[in-house]
Amino acid sequence: MAESWVIMVTAQTPTNIAVIKYWGKRDEKLILPVNDSISVTLDPVHLCTTTTVAVSPSFAQDRMWLNGKEISLSGGRYQNCLREIRARACDVEDKERGIKISKKDWEKLHVHIASYNNFPTAAGLASSAAGFACLVFALAKLMNAKEDHSELSAIARQGSGSACRSLFGGFVKWKMGKVEDGSDSLAVQVVDEKHWDDLVIIIAVVSSRQKETSSTTGMRETVETSLLLQHRAKEIVPKRIVQMEESIKNRNFASFAHLTCADSNQFHAVCMDTCPPIFYMNDTSHRIISCVEKWNRSVGTPQVAYTFDAGPNAVLIAHNRKAAAQLLQKLLFYFPPNSDTELNSYVLGDKSILKDAGIEDLKDVEALPPPPEIKDAPRYKGDVSYFICTRPGRGPVLLSDESQALLSPETGLPK
Amino acid sequence: MAESWVIMVTAQTPTNIAVIKYWGKRDEKLILPVNDSISVTLDPVHLCTTTTVAVSPSFAQDRMWLNGKEISLSGGRYQNCLREIRARACDVEDKERGIKISKKDWEKLHVHIASYNNFPTAAGLASSAAGFACLVFALAKLMNAKEDHSELSAIARQGSGSACRSLFGGFVKWKMGKVEDGSDSLAVQVVDEKHWDDLVIIIAVVSSRQKETSSTTGMRETVETSLLLQHRAKEIVPKRIVQMEESIKNRNFASFAHLTCADSNQFHAVCMDTCPPIFYMNDTSHRIISCVEKWNRSVGTPQVAYTFDAGPNAVLIAHNRKAAAQLLQKLLFYFPPNSDTELNSYVLGDKSILKDAGIEDLKDVEALPPPPEIKDAPRYKGDVSYFICTRPGRGPVLLSDESQALLSPETGLPK
Repeated sequence: MAESWVIMVTAQTPTNIAVIKYWGKRDEKLILPVNDSISVTLDPVHLCTTTTVAVSPSFAQDRMWLNGKEISLSGGRYQNCLREIRARACDVEDKERGIKISKKDWEKLHVHIASYNNFPTAAGLASSAAGFACLVFALAKLMNAKEDHSELSAIARQGSGSACRSLFGGFVKWKMGKVEDGSDSLAVQVVDEKHWDDLVIIIAVVSSRQKETSSTTGMRETVETSLLLQHRAKEIVPKRIVQMEESIKNRNFASFAHLTCADSNQFHAVCMDTCPPIFYMNDTSHRIISCVEKWNRSVGTPQVAYTFDAGPNAVLIAHNRKAAAQLLQKLLFYFPPNSDTELNSYVLGDKSILKDAGIEDLKDVEALPPPPEIKDAPRYKGDVSYFICTRPGRGPVLLSDESQALLSPETGLPK
Repeated sequence: MAESWVIMVTAQTPTNIAVIKYWGKRDEKLILPVNDSISVTLDPVHLCTTTTVAVSPSFAQDRMWLNGKEISLSGGRYQNCLREIRARACDVEDKERGIKISKKDWEKLHVHIASYNNFPTAAGLASSAAGFACLVFALAKLMNAKEDHSELSAIARQGSGSACRSLFGGFVKWKMGKVEDGSDSLAVQVVDEKHWDDLVIIIAVVSSRQKETSSTTGMRETVETSLLLQHRAKEIVPKRIVQMEESIKNRNFASFAHLTCADSNQFHAVCMDTCPPIFYMNDTSHRIISCVEKWNRSVGTPQVAYTFDAGPNAVLIAHNRKAAAQLLQKLLFYFPPNSDTELNSYVLGDKSILKDAGIEDLKDVEALPPPPEIKDAPRYKGDVSYFICTRPGRGPVLLSDESQALLSPETGLPK
């Protein structure tokens, strides 16, 4: 049965967090931004998407499963990515199995896609960035597209803007580009993940009762109504991009932290300047900022930078392991877990930071002294859902071990 | 004993809330702003300062009592106001009592000042605006200064910037001025309080655990660090001032509400763009905004405008009594009082709005239906301390009834 074969590729792609923010499109369809942005890629060990793409002449249509549940591919964003990758497909030959797909066959063949996030999709941790990057990367490998990561990033961008920055590890710049077709709006690597490897990242996933404005809707409304956004995009961000690249290349943490915090705050400022105003940060977010600002000021040089995306979660970038351990102590002081929560499920990711902080169990959390830089420090039990300790990480990789595939090699359906 | 006489004047001055915000000084000492602002004067029946000023040859020094407690007058702001008014003092004669104070005597005579707010000073309701306006107005009357209200406003401005706008009723513009000595940075009346007298104002005094950045410190830090403030001050506010004056003159509520809300949000946006960021609004403030925005959108035309100063309290300006009654119903639905609070001490000021809303007791509050424009509307008991219902009001007045004086006519000390 020549028609029963399945060819599969499995890839793993990191998520990323912007340190100079992307907010506002100049072209909604092509997803072209109003300014450059810069992000740090997060270690895929702790936060990543794994995607298996499969092709078979037996597939009757393109199908996709996200975290085990079938979802529709009819949305324009998926269609853009599928179309663009198919247009770049090349000959594929599996001599061992006697399978040959020629360039033009790809237009007729259907694909199955299964994608899985190793972190909660709803937690507001840029799952769509990792997801579209992984989809495009995996499809490109499956279809033997010859494009490099930057060229692929311009395709991932059409799925989700920030996805283009997940095609590289380390620090990544999304150049807004100039041309109308968007072909020069793509990601380039600033430095790889080894360049500045003493940074530690702690994410505070903040409990929220509020339903948030989606970033797509939010940025459209900001573009349409904020009188500050264009000034930010045209006058402020271009200078910050230059300064941020310098800070990263020189590992200048003071400058990096200043720019990261200022740009996060300015992004939330233009959200507030939107009509109606958009509030992504809540009181807990504000308290985390206050904790970091007061500590940084008391030390005299920044120990930690904070940045917030379109939600209340804090992403905290510590200068080094020592600062990260101290930060975690302060965070656990202010935001202890609910009494029914185990420490093990409250601090996720790289648990060695917890060890460095000298915290082994909930009793250690209860015994933490109040940070000396704040008087009458209250404790906000339950206001943080959990923490994730991680670091800057690598870009997309192929997983050659078939046991990690999410689709069955026989049926091409989810395992 | 010719030396034992006391001459007194008692005045009452309203507070005001800006609808186009003042934030940022171009001259810290003279208190000269970076942009014009426009405010509405609040009815002094509900929110005002009463100040008695007295002069006697028996007073050994200038002294002041605020809400019954003696405070220091050594601060530059008090000294500026005292000096400027003294420089404008004229001859005063009380023929009946045979007292004559000549222009030059005022330099040697000392004054006693007693001031009282009919609302909690710490509630963040612009008590310094009413306070300095009342101080300057009362002293000017005592010393027979011939300056008109605008000229006096330029003196009150040197006590507290926004105080200059409390020298008039109705809607008031503070012109930023151009000259270096600040003499043209003063308030003028846009329209008096009768021009648009169907407006109703509801203030939500929001409970807060946070200690706020003082507006003096906050605006200094914004001027020094925000990259958005100058753009706001130079490019955005001048146009809004023109539009706001038009809206007020034409009683165009839709335009008035749009400008008021947008400018409040933009003021808070530049606070957030400050380094470190300043957060005056909290989750309760955000929820009040969301309540108003959703209602306005569901009706199709704005019913209510919101504005927030340097704190979490909401000032809500309703189009008319009907809108105000509906607003109060919604607010009491979302923010019912704690069970130990009586309705009478929870809704203050003009209680007729409560009657219009059909609410007589706490049972009526409990029985309120959820606003139809929001699904699954939760209730946030205790998040608001109390509400004050009021309206646009008149400017400063002299109180001729001596029983309202705060100082004894014999001793010149607080009664």
